Amino acid sequence: MHIAILTFDGFNELDSLIALGVLNRIKKPGWRVSLAAPTDTVRSMNGVTLHATASLAEARVADVVLVGSGIRTRDIAADPAILSALPLDPARQLIGAQCSGTLLLAKLGILGAVPACTDLTTKPWVQEAGVQVLDQPFYAAGNVATAGGCLSSPYLAAWVIARTEGRDAAAAALHYVAPVGEKEAYVAQALRNIDPYLPAPASRTMAAIAH
Amino acid sequence: MHIAILTFDGFNELDSLIALGVLNRIKKPGWRVSLAAPTDTVRSMNGVTLHATASLAEARVADVVLVGSGIRTRDIAADPAILSALPLDPARQLIGAQCSGTLLLAKLGILGAVPACTDLTTKPWVQEAGVQVLDQPFYAAGNVATAGGCLSSPYLAAWVIARTEGRDAAAAALHYVAPVGEKEAYVAQALRNIDPYLPAPASRTMAAIAH
Repeated sequence: MHIAILTFDGFNELDSLIALGVLNRIKKPGWRVSLAAPTDTVRSMNGVTLHATASLAEARVADVVLVGSGIRTRDIAADPAILSALPLDPARQLIGAQCSGTLLLAKLGILGAVPACTDLTTKPWVQEAGVQVLDQPFYAAGNVATAGGCLSSPYLAAWVIARTEGRDAAAAALHYVAPVGEKEAYVAQALRNIDPYLPAPASRTMAAIAH
Repeated sequence: MHIAILTFDGFNELDSLIALGVLNRIKKPGWRVSLAAPTDTVRSMNGVTLHATASLAEARVADVVLVGSGIRTRDIAADPAILSALPLDPARQLIGAQCSGTLLLAKLGILGAVPACTDLTTKPWVQEAGVQVLDQPFYAAGNVATAGGCLSSPYLAAWVIARTEGRDAAAAALHYVAPVGEKEAYVAQALRNIDPYLPAPASRTMAAIAH
């Protein structure tokens, strides 16, 4: 399972690295979380330079692609070289976007008529691209999810874990990163945000019927 | 105002970079948030390599020092070279620690008899160092604060902003990073955690008297 987090120059540290941290709570062979960038190093909106661990070519064939956010996303979403390098496909990939990453998904034509979440700054640009923006932290339709506001990153990461490793694994990852003394409340709040977008597990359906 | 976030090999991405992102919401000349490390680059617990932007020598004279967390903190907190490089002083610096960073503060003798917050994994080691560990996300006594659980990082960053730029600036920074649709609730929750440890402003005291 390769999860590529697209990270461009000007990236928002929270959006790429919270997802990376939460996703790395899954400890199993073959579980790989990468920072995918067009260049060997990328520099954040606040001057943090980090090394990419995957190329865009690797990201396009990843099992899961999360589009990070940043201050240069409008330029990136208008760059034909970037867009043509990312023929993402929700039929074979889970695809998620955080904040301004939603604009890139819109420009890639992946959102279509599906509404989406984004941050308040990016909102008018996503609307201009023809996408309805929701006043909520997380939304998913099928294999495509979007999140708005940096600290909704754990919800997006939890959705990926729930879809690939199950809801219990997602809850455990969230519990680990949650503030001490607020863990149960935090996990419950996060699950309230992603549960409506998870396939109903057979066991829970059966339990509901039994009751 | 130089805020140095101590970041060592094996660091937890969330703990160093959430603080960095929130603190950089303050946009004013002379406000500098650095990643301070003993080496030019450091590699995280999940394989992310980033470039330090300050040395430990710069951190020791910073106005604010936040000790990040990581999987190697026990070794670091037992390393005489690191400990002697960090003669931190709460009389002239605001000092904070996130998760296992609390162990380093304990070993540096900065906590003394003051209780502290840390993550559940580090808790027994901090207790072994003679410090009482609290079941809450944030605690401060004077100029020394500690936080437990990765996602309490915004509380620690907000405390720094509140102490240096005021509570309104802290609230605004938290509002920006909070999930869309949950912003007011998030800010209120965060402020509930840090308010007990902020000096009572004269204006609020006067307002309370007037009522």
